[in-house]
Amino acid sequence: MPDHENVMTKELLQKLRDDPFPNYLGVELDEVAPGYARVKLRVQDHMTNIHRITHGGVVFTLADVALGVASNSRGPAAVAVNVNINYIRASSPGDVLVTTAEEEHLGRQTASYRVTVRDGRGRLVAVAQGLVFRKAENAPG
Amino acid sequence: MPDHENVMTKELLQKLRDDPFPNYLGVELDEVAPGYARVKLRVQDHMTNIHRITHGGVVFTLADVALGVASNSRGPAAVAVNVNINYIRASSPGDVLVTTAEEEHLGRQTASYRVTVRDGRGRLVAVAQGLVFRKAENAPG
Amino acid sequence: MPDHENVMTKELLQKLRDDPFPNYLGVELDEVAPGYARVKLRVQDHMTNIHRITHGGVVFTLADVALGVASNSRGPAAVAVNVNINYIRASSPGDVLVTTAEEEHLGRQTASYRVTVRDGRGRLVAVAQGLVFRKAENAPG
Amino acid sequence: MPDHENVMTKELLQKLRDDPFPNYLGVELDEVAPGYARVKLRVQDHMTNIHRITHGGVVFTLADVALGVASNSRGPAAVAVNVNINYIRASSPGDVLVTTAEEEHLGRQTASYRVTVRDGRGRLVAVAQGLVFRKAENAPG
Repeated sequence: MPDHENVMTKELLQKLRDDPFPNYLGVELDEVAPGYARVKLRVQDHMTNIHRITHGGVVFTLADVALGVASNSRGPAAVAVNVNINYIRASSPGDVLVTTAEEEHLGRQTASYRVTVRDGRGRLVAVAQGLVFRKAENAPG
Repeated sequence: MPDHENVMTKELLQKLRDDPFPNYLGVELDEVAPGYARVKLRVQDHMTNIHRITHGGVVFTLADVALGVASNSRGPAAVAVNVNINYIRASSPGDVLVTTAEEEHLGRQTASYRVTVRDGRGRLVAVAQGLVFRKAENAPG
Repeated sequence: MPDHENVMTKELLQKLRDDPFPNYLGVELDEVAPGYARVKLRVQDHMTNIHRITHGGVVFTLADVALGVASNSRGPAAVAVNVNINYIRASSPGDVLVTTAEEEHLGRQTASYRVTVRDGRGRLVAVAQGLVFRKAENAPG
Repeated sequence: MPDHENVMTKELLQKLRDDPFPNYLGVELDEVAPGYARVKLRVQDHMTNIHRITHGGVVFTLADVALGVASNSRGPAAVAVNVNINYIRASSPGDVLVTTAEEEHLGRQTASYRVTVRDGRGRLVAVAQGLVFRKAENAPG
């Protein structure tokens, strides 16, 4: 991979932080490095479903945010084309969900990530894998 | 399938409408029938990602809401265990995304749904398939 | 889409038929049209798993063959990058599995297909969705 | 988990080895432990597709075999309900594909596995995740 894909400029980091939907939900960007991201969210009452557990859309969004940050941290704009999620354990308001995305493969046009969502006790809430397309040039910072 | 799984009580319908996270986002329940749901959402600025297109978590959430309504419309509590989504076309603030979930298979313990997300011009934004577990007894209304 | 992607030359059809692994297994190419394929296979004893039902690899292979034929029937070489399969019903030796792949979306670089595997009584054995990359130029016939 | 799910009887091991389709293809069972499996296969000419690379059905079958062995190694019969695969790198006749399945979650009714397929140089050929249902009682050895 090109050397510049192993470093993150301040501008890129700021761009990754300036992400409307995660900010709206209150997702915190805990850690980011080229090809890696960890984000977290405290589940609130309005994030639940009819069974009063965390809505699948919230759990998925966490996975997707981590995937988006990890894949765009390389510099070139990356867009998810496929994400597959297995829901393993229910969580509830008050739980802090910690989500990490790790790069499994970085190609020229595509990259593949593995994502885990865990509750505050470290138990798996969901696992996901994501496939992204990478744009040819660097995205403007 | 048991006959009562082909009708929806008022209580069940109300329960499906009383869904915190979709309500918080502004998702409208357009149509629901046993094994079927259509929901819609007008994308707003705070629902975008760093590329200023609709966030993958929002598109997925629509799919997941339709899946949840369609699968719980049978009566017994249903919980998604796997969802797979292919993102096909970007959408933007102002777009109205219409999402339908259709039952492909209804078994005793599991059921399978096909979900499509389309923009206002009927173009595919995403396709998904979802697998749910069904609880043994009817969920209380 | 370019006009020539709506017709199939004899050379392309022959290429699609000359497919080593499906031929080895005995998969028959029932019908093919641009963006569409139907294949079938009679399950044999050596195609089972430890539970003596059709092996998941065999059911998937049918789905993948239909996906490959449907996506390559457009002309440009297409390669699957993601396939997701839900197994719905077991089948056994003697069953004839009929599998169809239908195009949901045909883009310049990618295309998306929906695949169903049914037994001789028309019951769903599996459903799958597949995402392919398309090469820039026409593949040689 | 029950203690007996952490040991493998000779009968169970024999059952896992006596698997018709993998044996037909020539898949070797390299290593097996409760919740874990490693299998391998030397790709042959008849295992290719129209592009003369390893057929997606063969790569998937390896993943599915590892998943089946790992999940059934616990004792109770396990059947895959969903598998999602990302194809990352093409392989060819002569390549030896080594595939491992690792348990991510073992529940009472379901279990989740992560599967990787690598070529002889250790490069990722595919990654998959699989979800299985577990039967209530021990399957007869």
